[in-house]
Amino acid sequence: MIFRARLILIIVLTIILGAPARALDIDVTSFTLANGMEVVVIPDRRAPVVTHMVWYKVGAADEPQGKAGIAHLLEHLMFKGTPKYPEGEFSRIVRANGGDENAFTSQDYTAYFQRIARERLELVMELEADRMHNLVLTDENVLPERSVVQEERRERTDNDPSSLLAEQLDAALYTAHPYGKPVIGWMSEVAQLTRQDALDFYAEHYEPANAVLVVAGDVTGDEVKLLAERHYGPLKNRRPPEARVRTQEPAPVAERRVIMRDERVSSPLWQRRYLTASSRNLSRREDHALSLLADVLGGGTQSRLHQKLTLEKKLAAYAGAWSSTDSLDSGSFAIYAAPNPGASTAEIEKVIDEELALIRDKGISQEELDRTRDRSIAEAAYVLDSQESLARIFGVALTTGQSIGNVMNWERDLAAVTVEDVAKAARTVLDLRASVTGLLLPANGS
Amino acid sequence: MIFRARLILIIVLTIILGAPARALDIDVTSFTLANGMEVVVIPDRRAPVVTHMVWYKVGAADEPQGKAGIAHLLEHLMFKGTPKYPEGEFSRIVRANGGDENAFTSQDYTAYFQRIARERLELVMELEADRMHNLVLTDENVLPERSVVQEERRERTDNDPSSLLAEQLDAALYTAHPYGKPVIGWMSEVAQLTRQDALDFYAEHYEPANAVLVVAGDVTGDEVKLLAERHYGPLKNRRPPEARVRTQEPAPVAERRVIMRDERVSSPLWQRRYLTASSRNLSRREDHALSLLADVLGGGTQSRLHQKLTLEKKLAAYAGAWSSTDSLDSGSFAIYAAPNPGASTAEIEKVIDEELALIRDKGISQEELDRTRDRSIAEAAYVLDSQESLARIFGVALTTGQSIGNVMNWERDLAAVTVEDVAKAARTVLDLRASVTGLLLPANGS
Repeated sequence: MIFRARLILIIVLTIILGAPARALDIDVTSFTLANGMEVVVIPDRRAPVVTHMVWYKVGAADEPQGKAGIAHLLEHLMFKGTPKYPEGEFSRIVRANGGDENAFTSQDYTAYFQRIARERLELVMELEADRMHNLVLTDENVLPERSVVQEERRERTDNDPSSLLAEQLDAALYTAHPYGKPVIGWMSEVAQLTRQDALDFYAEHYEPANAVLVVAGDVTGDEVKLLAERHYGPLKNRRPPEARVRTQEPAPVAERRVIMRDERVSSPLWQRRYLTASSRNLSRREDHALSLLADVLGGGTQSRLHQKLTLEKKLAAYAGAWSSTDSLDSGSFAIYAAPNPGASTAEIEKVIDEELALIRDKGISQEELDRTRDRSIAEAAYVLDSQESLARIFGVALTTGQSIGNVMNWERDLAAVTVEDVAKAARTVLDLRASVTGLLLPANGS
Repeated sequence: MIFRARLILIIVLTIILGAPARALDIDVTSFTLANGMEVVVIPDRRAPVVTHMVWYKVGAADEPQGKAGIAHLLEHLMFKGTPKYPEGEFSRIVRANGGDENAFTSQDYTAYFQRIARERLELVMELEADRMHNLVLTDENVLPERSVVQEERRERTDNDPSSLLAEQLDAALYTAHPYGKPVIGWMSEVAQLTRQDALDFYAEHYEPANAVLVVAGDVTGDEVKLLAERHYGPLKNRRPPEARVRTQEPAPVAERRVIMRDERVSSPLWQRRYLTASSRNLSRREDHALSLLADVLGGGTQSRLHQKLTLEKKLAAYAGAWSSTDSLDSGSFAIYAAPNPGASTAEIEKVIDEELALIRDKGISQEELDRTRDRSIAEAAYVLDSQESLARIFGVALTTGQSIGNVMNWERDLAAVTVEDVAKAARTVLDLRASVTGLLLPANGS
């Protein structure tokens, strides 16, 4: 499964990184095993279940030249079995014990998780530790899975104009950085991936020192430590972990536009993305100011874009904005709107550019800031009801160069943001030279 | 030196591939040495000099992930000397013998050449053969040269808005293929290149079976064969040559635009590039039809765009078009125009799009075809006066998957092109979904 960071994670993350202290006022335990594997334990005693996640600090942006899609294909292949638990056993055992499981790949991380009864934690830990080093791949199980991924690409991207455009926008926004390459890979490269490519990528990146264990649920730090040392502790790193060196995106110099006309498109969509720094390269104030700026502009019905485009001018069916800084190297600040029948993307863009100029020049009011802050606090409560979301937040933070403190100190950091911080964020991020504007249009629309 | 294929080679190539039979009615000899090195000999007895070129079938598009610029840096480093001829000796000997030399790197090939008195041919051959396998690199000679290349990038690209835009256009036109990466490399990667990176690239690609020797001048095939077997013959391939597998560019789905505003720009420039197939993937008729289409549209003062934009509407200071298919994987079809003071790029674009619609719908006249064909034949004569150009044509052809026949049979192929072929070429290539339009504008211009 490809984790649609921009569609899911952002919402979860911006909110959670902004979750009320109440919600994160938990006795989170973290420690590192002798082999370098990081462990985070998040008590959640509301039910006798645990969420067990192993996150690898490797994703599509770490793929070698010509092997686009290998990180995601390997995620699929991790279910192909080991000498001890042959193909199908892992999933069968999890299901037989009343659990469920899943996995996902992003540009920066690949994660595997199970949710299961607390007394079965050791069982899934043993299974996950086993496949960290003992995966067995054969052409017989790799090639059919590669076809599955190719079909996945056809269905989710090639047959979906909005996904195709999203791919084009990334390709245009990043001139050099691998974030411009889709997580699922280019078809011509996926079609060439081999068993050996997968084994090479596995051998290079699937190591305890390159992994983070996150356990949330009805369990204590001491219990997890005992089990983690028993099952993950004995794993040796086959090589010293290497720094994740990636191409730096050159300083943006030109506004880009992508215009896609497709007869499969019934109603047009206008989008813009600006390149931003990532959380690890932003101060907490700057990071939260970006997410608050996005919310003021396009978060919910009180937001400026919704008020102006949807209610006042009735030009758009919907409009919104989001900030995603939860990546290792760079983030995106996005704005989108869907014109009503009869309205054109050009009209929409004109109004949006006026609103952006306004917020860049005049900033926002204290009342807007307070209301927006309260809103994200309120929304956080819902998200935190999910044990999986809770675990996910820590996994994402620790695989994208952020600290547990980023998550824990959320409320203090959010509270510190001033209207000046948000105005500064607007002046910094809303630079057309660092942007791509995308139009998704019906064959003959505008 | 980075070979500016789009600015020089195209002109040379389209014209030469369209050179009169008279011009290429030469007794060209070609053969292959036992170690797989191809040899082409082009007699030119107008002066007692020879042009000696060794072409390697490797360029920037063959670089590994994260090593952008290594092909070009290695070209610089090839002058750092061997045990037999220490740093500086190669160039000193060539100069001392009244010769000159140069080298260039493109996406598909890297070439080294000397022009020298005919009786010195064996001397330069011995020098070139020596450095194919015996290059000595140390941090002391690599690191300063890397700084030279970084400075070259600063001067030629970063400080030149039109070069910066050209880089952005390539990045936008190619979503997946390495042609989207500049030959000189991204600064952040060039800055990280090491002696070992250069040695690895050298060991992988600098082999006789991966090289083409082209000798033009006052020499016979038998003489060259004798010398080539003596000096290049003994070189053994250290590994079997590998196929040049590169990412396939996905089928283009969206029109792209790049708008660059720069206070260093005094007058605006409008450009468009369409992705095309490359010579090796086009029939001779299709290939020549593209170059004739470019000439009808924008070749010289009789061309449609010059007549319409410059003479009739007086909107542009100049306007032109070219077709470049001399690459391994794909080509470009380009159109450009410089608005006169007072005219906008939007006005220019409107007129150009009208002209493109016209030629796509109505094609061209026999008179236009004949006139354009005659013009390229006439121009070819000048180019063929240059022994270096002559040698270069064969080197480019043989390192981009073309045959000697492509060059030799030029006149027959050009003569076979009909107005229908040109109309078909227009309908095929002029598809906005496969294009990028670039605007280079003054800080506040349009």
